[in-house]
Amino acid sequence: MMLSDIEIARSAKMKPIVEVAAQLGIDEEELELYGKYKAKVTYGLWNRIKDRPDGKLVLVTAITPTPAGEGKTTTTVGLAQGLAKLGKKVSIALREPSLGPSFGVKGGAAGGGYSQVVPMEDINLHFTGDLHAITTAHNLLAALLDNHLHQGNPLNIDPRRVVFRRVIDLNERALRYVNVGLGGKTNGVPRESGFDITVASEVMAILCLSESIKELKERLAQIVVAYTYDGTAVTAGDLNAQGSMAVVLKDALKPNLVQTLEHVPAFVHGGPFANIAHGCNSIQATKYGLKLSDYFITEAGFGADLGAEKFFDIKCREGNLHPSAVVIVATVRALKMHGGVAKSELTGENLEALSKGIPNLEKHIENMQGFGVPVVVAINRFPTDTEAELKLVHERCAAFGVPVALSEIWAKGGEGGIELAERILEAVEKPNSFHPLYDVAQSPKEKIEKIAKEIYGAKGVTYTAQAEKDLEEIHRLGKDNLVICMAKTQASISDNPALIGRPEGFELTVREVRLSAGAGFIIAITGSIMTMPGLPKVPAAMKIDVDNDGNITGLF
Amino acid sequence: MMLSDIEIARSAKMKPIVEVAAQLGIDEEELELYGKYKAKVTYGLWNRIKDRPDGKLVLVTAITPTPAGEGKTTTTVGLAQGLAKLGKKVSIALREPSLGPSFGVKGGAAGGGYSQVVPMEDINLHFTGDLHAITTAHNLLAALLDNHLHQGNPLNIDPRRVVFRRVIDLNERALRYVNVGLGGKTNGVPRESGFDITVASEVMAILCLSESIKELKERLAQIVVAYTYDGTAVTAGDLNAQGSMAVVLKDALKPNLVQTLEHVPAFVHGGPFANIAHGCNSIQATKYGLKLSDYFITEAGFGADLGAEKFFDIKCREGNLHPSAVVIVATVRALKMHGGVAKSELTGENLEALSKGIPNLEKHIENMQGFGVPVVVAINRFPTDTEAELKLVHERCAAFGVPVALSEIWAKGGEGGIELAERILEAVEKPNSFHPLYDVAQSPKEKIEKIAKEIYGAKGVTYTAQAEKDLEEIHRLGKDNLVICMAKTQASISDNPALIGRPEGFELTVREVRLSAGAGFIIAITGSIMTMPGLPKVPAAMKIDVDNDGNITGLF
Repeated sequence: MMLSDIEIARSAKMKPIVEVAAQLGIDEEELELYGKYKAKVTYGLWNRIKDRPDGKLVLVTAITPTPAGEGKTTTTVGLAQGLAKLGKKVSIALREPSLGPSFGVKGGAAGGGYSQVVPMEDINLHFTGDLHAITTAHNLLAALLDNHLHQGNPLNIDPRRVVFRRVIDLNERALRYVNVGLGGKTNGVPRESGFDITVASEVMAILCLSESIKELKERLAQIVVAYTYDGTAVTAGDLNAQGSMAVVLKDALKPNLVQTLEHVPAFVHGGPFANIAHGCNSIQATKYGLKLSDYFITEAGFGADLGAEKFFDIKCREGNLHPSAVVIVATVRALKMHGGVAKSELTGENLEALSKGIPNLEKHIENMQGFGVPVVVAINRFPTDTEAELKLVHERCAAFGVPVALSEIWAKGGEGGIELAERILEAVEKPNSFHPLYDVAQSPKEKIEKIAKEIYGAKGVTYTAQAEKDLEEIHRLGKDNLVICMAKTQASISDNPALIGRPEGFELTVREVRLSAGAGFIIAITGSIMTMPGLPKVPAAMKIDVDNDGNITGLF
Repeated sequence: MMLSDIEIARSAKMKPIVEVAAQLGIDEEELELYGKYKAKVTYGLWNRIKDRPDGKLVLVTAITPTPAGEGKTTTTVGLAQGLAKLGKKVSIALREPSLGPSFGVKGGAAGGGYSQVVPMEDINLHFTGDLHAITTAHNLLAALLDNHLHQGNPLNIDPRRVVFRRVIDLNERALRYVNVGLGGKTNGVPRESGFDITVASEVMAILCLSESIKELKERLAQIVVAYTYDGTAVTAGDLNAQGSMAVVLKDALKPNLVQTLEHVPAFVHGGPFANIAHGCNSIQATKYGLKLSDYFITEAGFGADLGAEKFFDIKCREGNLHPSAVVIVATVRALKMHGGVAKSELTGENLEALSKGIPNLEKHIENMQGFGVPVVVAINRFPTDTEAELKLVHERCAAFGVPVALSEIWAKGGEGGIELAERILEAVEKPNSFHPLYDVAQSPKEKIEKIAKEIYGAKGVTYTAQAEKDLEEIHRLGKDNLVICMAKTQASISDNPALIGRPEGFELTVREVRLSAGAGFIIAITGSIMTMPGLPKVPAAMKIDVDNDGNITGLF
């Protein structure tokens, strides 16, 4: 009988987190326990380990996502479990899920099958409260801003040019566009505003990039919240908000430690959006993992065009990190979808469609090799995959000198990841010339064009009038030298979600450019970006229940 | 040198919470640890102790609050520490502070001086996340409601008659009145709404009254969120929201255990508003305390006219609790203010003003005796109090057969509370005929009048046209038999904040009546009730900071 993810997670025998931490040489005194199976690591631990050499950093990314699913998180967990089976000292870091959306469609999980992190329900609910802290810190800044407007507005803020919205960790369609400050002169200054979901908060991106309370405060202070009537940017620092925001965030800043089903230590910390932010877990979690283990595996959001590019150009640059290898996850089914087959017609051998879809994988391989990092392709194997299909993938990858590992980590856990683990142990020893794609000193347009042409394969970039205006504003503010954070559809390597496979000859259109000065991003928006999801007609919430002993049903 | 509350709290040597719990016979397995010094108690513990006899229940209440301060929470802590010094097995329960308002004016603290609960900073910040869970559960219901409107509105809800607002745990003036659902047809249904502060949420009141997940769900399902076009009440149950809300709340429902500075076990759990709700910590925390100790001390919000009346008529009735004694906290300074002296002129003996102010205390004594519970008056002693002043208080209380204990618990901790502890040990053995004030089967007006006349000393009750309409609606909904929750100024025993001392001959005006069907309250509103505070001109947030090691300044 096939068990569901939640059944497998619930039947797991977890080790006390103190024992899991001990595998990495962490002392109990260096942990802050949240129950028996969750903990935060402390600055004391960091101070003890910070001068050690780093372990090998392996990034797990994927081909362009399809409805068939690829299994990036599952592969991250399964690969680590495979390395542990080979006796290696290994840890992982994943993004921290957001609670709210679980009440829209069935929730979360981190990984799947026998390659999950646990305790799954806790991780998907309040966990250690990080998301709540981010929501609160973000909204505290918003409250200080509206209070400033109300209390005489000494900074001369134009209420029509407040760019900082509020956040809530729920799918809240009705809060996308709101008017606040209504009800007369004792109740604030009326203005248009709205709410985003918490993971879209710039505070979340900042938390994931900050390596100390000091850096956190410096970044928070730089958040641009509004403009004055004469066009000057107003920052959180101008409102003196960074200290109290940091107080709210001081525990959220510490990475959380849990475990995989096979007791591999797993940091689960931070989860910024992968479009308007960089989509990776925290630099801190990554650094703890690198100092504490010989092999450290992590992942990045969406496909390699977005997730891996941002991982290399933003996270590795900011954190001075040096990836040793990259895994591109694919499935035969998803590659056939890139060859034009509908999801309902994926059963049965179809070498023609597969051959037509493989160029998507090839483009991602070329891109990763372009960053100077050794590549391994992991094929998450399905029972319907034929030998001829698998052989074709092997051959096409061999042309790039890239090994392919078949993985069965969903069904078999670490045992199913041993082949992939072996390929990774070889890859991390290969020559490595890692370098980011662009120089931050280049102009924003030069940087955007480099990504568009070299990573996406665009023939050029078009800017709308709005985007041109936005870029001028950024130039005027002296922020040209920030990194680029592309906000693009994840469904295609291009900016057109309909273009599957390996699109070519297209023109990328930048419609809007936003500044996240605290995170340090110039965000180039190439489509409509949804920062607040809505609930479906029949929300999962209506079927979720909990019995008198606390057993949950319907959440996963 | 006099240390501040925060300096005393920081220099405290806490015991591990496991040891504090062991004093009450709680096993480590019956705790869920949140770090070393905070824990939640589990249902397993409850099942083991639930058939035990109860300890003695002592309520700490106060005279009508003045700007001079009375020290109710400090007395609760100090009395318990005094009892512990006398070798008694004692525990306490306090309300759980809300995080947001700390960023408006200098924050929180729980108790003061050498009678505080610790870890103070944690308790006043995120603590164990209960407030965040309540915020989320409340807003999840609001999101389901707006989604229902958006997805075709099968229940025929009138968007102009949505009575359920949203909440946030911040002082957010600009969110008091908002328009939501703007931005066109894909972004919800436009309607007027607003935000309250989280402690004003009916979900908070429900959490504090519920003794199991089952009861929690039953109460949540009864929250009235809106009315249909034909006037039918729509509940959270109609939206099937109670299951998912209970999932969000399942850990928040478990009482939190911390300790006083002298290691007395302290439950800190739940903190509903004391005007539109009942202002007491959770029934569950109270019951754990009563089963686990011989003497259990707790407090209620505001003065005895509001806090103690609701404690007896709402909390004790709902929880089937039997108070053994009540402490009325007063200070000579505050009594002089009730005699008409300004705060700036309180130094120096003033027997005339004191004599004029004592009737406030006398009215509260009469009221408490009316409930059939033995009374002790605790005078929190100040160095400026003269012997003649203290003697006058003693004499006037003696006329009611009520002992007076001088307490110095702020400066001396439990040692300063021994006299009060001795009086309490005597009081709890006195004859006790506790009974609530009114019968729930009486009409709402009969119940309101009984409180107004017997507790407040009003000569009658006037209802505005709105209040009459509200009462008719409640009658139509068949909710006449709920308890009354009075929302009245705390600054006077009357409904006029200017009337200090013991007001007489006034007419109480009920302006509006609200229904909290989940909490089980008919709320009679007698003045303007603020459910969302605003930030001051210079918010505390602007001076709050945290250094790189996590040390906070400016919060307290």
